[in-house]
Amino acid sequence: MLPAYDLVYETYGTLNAAKSNAILVCHALSGNHHVAGTYADTPDSVGWWDNIIGPGRPLDTNRFFIVGVNNLGGCHGSTGPSSVNAATGKPWGAAFPMMAVVDWVRAQARLADLLGIDVWAAVVGGSLGGMQALRWAITFPERVRHSLVIAAAPKLTAQNIAFNDVARQAILSDPDFHGGHYYEHQTKPWRGLRLARMLGHITYLSDDQMGERFGRDLRGDGLKFGYDIEFEVESYLRHQGDKFADVFDANTYLLMTKALDYFDPARKTNGDLAAALSVARARFLVVAFTTDWRFAPARSREIVDALLRNGQDVSYAELGCDYGHDSFLMPDPTYHKLISTYMGTIQT
Amino acid sequence: MLPAYDLVYETYGTLNAAKSNAILVCHALSGNHHVAGTYADTPDSVGWWDNIIGPGRPLDTNRFFIVGVNNLGGCHGSTGPSSVNAATGKPWGAAFPMMAVVDWVRAQARLADLLGIDVWAAVVGGSLGGMQALRWAITFPERVRHSLVIAAAPKLTAQNIAFNDVARQAILSDPDFHGGHYYEHQTKPWRGLRLARMLGHITYLSDDQMGERFGRDLRGDGLKFGYDIEFEVESYLRHQGDKFADVFDANTYLLMTKALDYFDPARKTNGDLAAALSVARARFLVVAFTTDWRFAPARSREIVDALLRNGQDVSYAELGCDYGHDSFLMPDPTYHKLISTYMGTIQT
Repeated sequence: MLPAYDLVYETYGTLNAAKSNAILVCHALSGNHHVAGTYADTPDSVGWWDNIIGPGRPLDTNRFFIVGVNNLGGCHGSTGPSSVNAATGKPWGAAFPMMAVVDWVRAQARLADLLGIDVWAAVVGGSLGGMQALRWAITFPERVRHSLVIAAAPKLTAQNIAFNDVARQAILSDPDFHGGHYYEHQTKPWRGLRLARMLGHITYLSDDQMGERFGRDLRGDGLKFGYDIEFEVESYLRHQGDKFADVFDANTYLLMTKALDYFDPARKTNGDLAAALSVARARFLVVAFTTDWRFAPARSREIVDALLRNGQDVSYAELGCDYGHDSFLMPDPTYHKLISTYMGTIQT
Repeated sequence: MLPAYDLVYETYGTLNAAKSNAILVCHALSGNHHVAGTYADTPDSVGWWDNIIGPGRPLDTNRFFIVGVNNLGGCHGSTGPSSVNAATGKPWGAAFPMMAVVDWVRAQARLADLLGIDVWAAVVGGSLGGMQALRWAITFPERVRHSLVIAAAPKLTAQNIAFNDVARQAILSDPDFHGGHYYEHQTKPWRGLRLARMLGHITYLSDDQMGERFGRDLRGDGLKFGYDIEFEVESYLRHQGDKFADVFDANTYLLMTKALDYFDPARKTNGDLAAALSVARARFLVVAFTTDWRFAPARSREIVDALLRNGQDVSYAELGCDYGHDSFLMPDPTYHKLISTYMGTIQT
């Protein structure tokens, strides 16, 4: 248990007098509270979902008051494993408590209390963020009018868990991990975190998209017959891994993947997702992408089927974006039109 | 260049007087020459393709003389990175030359010369072994009567290469790798090789099969909220990684994955696979498995389409086995019946 914690958040747009236009945007594994815009003097600091959030955009900041929050356990300002534990004067490290999606949702609810927001007009998220949007509708049914669950799944498959476990083993077996207390050793499990990200990244993209973008193109002239970069896809992937390992915290990565593995809102209803969802009062928009093999459309349809069995209000779209799981981050015109249109039905 | 090399091989059955009943079985990434049977006094030492090779089995040792060979660069007896370089008195390590599939095929041809086998009745292989069967038909068209190309692809996709590169990076970035000269440091990059195998293993299985076999089953009672084994699939995967890292050589793993990446028989014909295959004189049997997402049936159909465009003799089967890429190793009755029937058409 944490005796206290900080949550860092950002807001965009203006909360109206009735406080009826607030939208919570939940982030996925590597995201944070900085969902849109740039910081003064740092034009590179574009928020991770900037293409969908802003004046006139699908999540329109002229109409809505949008809240982005860095989840508890994160590494972008909210209390997490790299934060100092006041009781010891040292970073929490491996002693930081494990998080479940419901813990994040409860912490977000406390933030809503502080902001005076009784009811979210919508809770929106993709991937792990979509799981939070789903969990909100179950845990706080009276506080969510619309739940937008994008590129998500009601629980992970064995294959999903297996990929996460390889990523975790890469970090845990890195000699620089020091049982999670690497901060005190002035090091970090950079190699392991890099591998974890490289692996994760493959699962975010579609096979076809990688084929179109990189194919078997070589980085230089001809094959070199060595272990340096030969194929363009290797260059891309290693660069993604390097960049991520430089800035992200490995303990946060570990606990985020565990929250993914644990997520299973139907656990208490013996696997009956419809029973778990029956308490929800929100209207749902569920969105899946045909090229997403990490959380394939069939997984989204499990959510839709459960809601329909209960006679609950759900819209479902299966979109043909090319970008695999990462499609939810992309400015695809059809996808954005869909979100815009749905958001237009939400009263403020 | 290697000044000389050893190849270790095993044979099963009897070579007939006409030397017309010889079959070469090519191994995949982690295979070797021990394709069938057990060694005296070690009943556990069952060959990796024992279920398909033997008296009365699809590759019937009552009819055929079957040859299994450990590829050059391997770690089961043939000259490889762990062999001593006579010029230095030390293991080759990173100085061992890179191998392409065609190098293996040429070495196998020299073995055939020594055995007095001018023409193979068939060259047979699954996965990387299937690529060798394909390459044989192109490089030595007069020496192959039948080519059985199972669960293979004419070349790797960007995604395939990406998975291989993550596996390689796991090994190359392991502090115990020592630039490939770990033998001299009395250590081995065990952690990296273990990760490589865990990752590879996920791609050998189908999502559905993992779901049926492990699902979200827990290893013990309830969630433990820690990084030890929680889910059964984690236990299985880590065990596979541990076992493999104990016995396999990391440098061999590296060069085998590179041979996979490089394989592209149509490179010299500007990507025209039909042109590359046009020299072949063999009859082909191409087999794919619907649940194989590493080398999906569409990849096998590229081979079949190219052969058909040339008017060459090819049979194609797409089988519904549940075991993903690993289906080629499984004793599925339909699969075995297919191979038996095809082998029955081969004159000896």
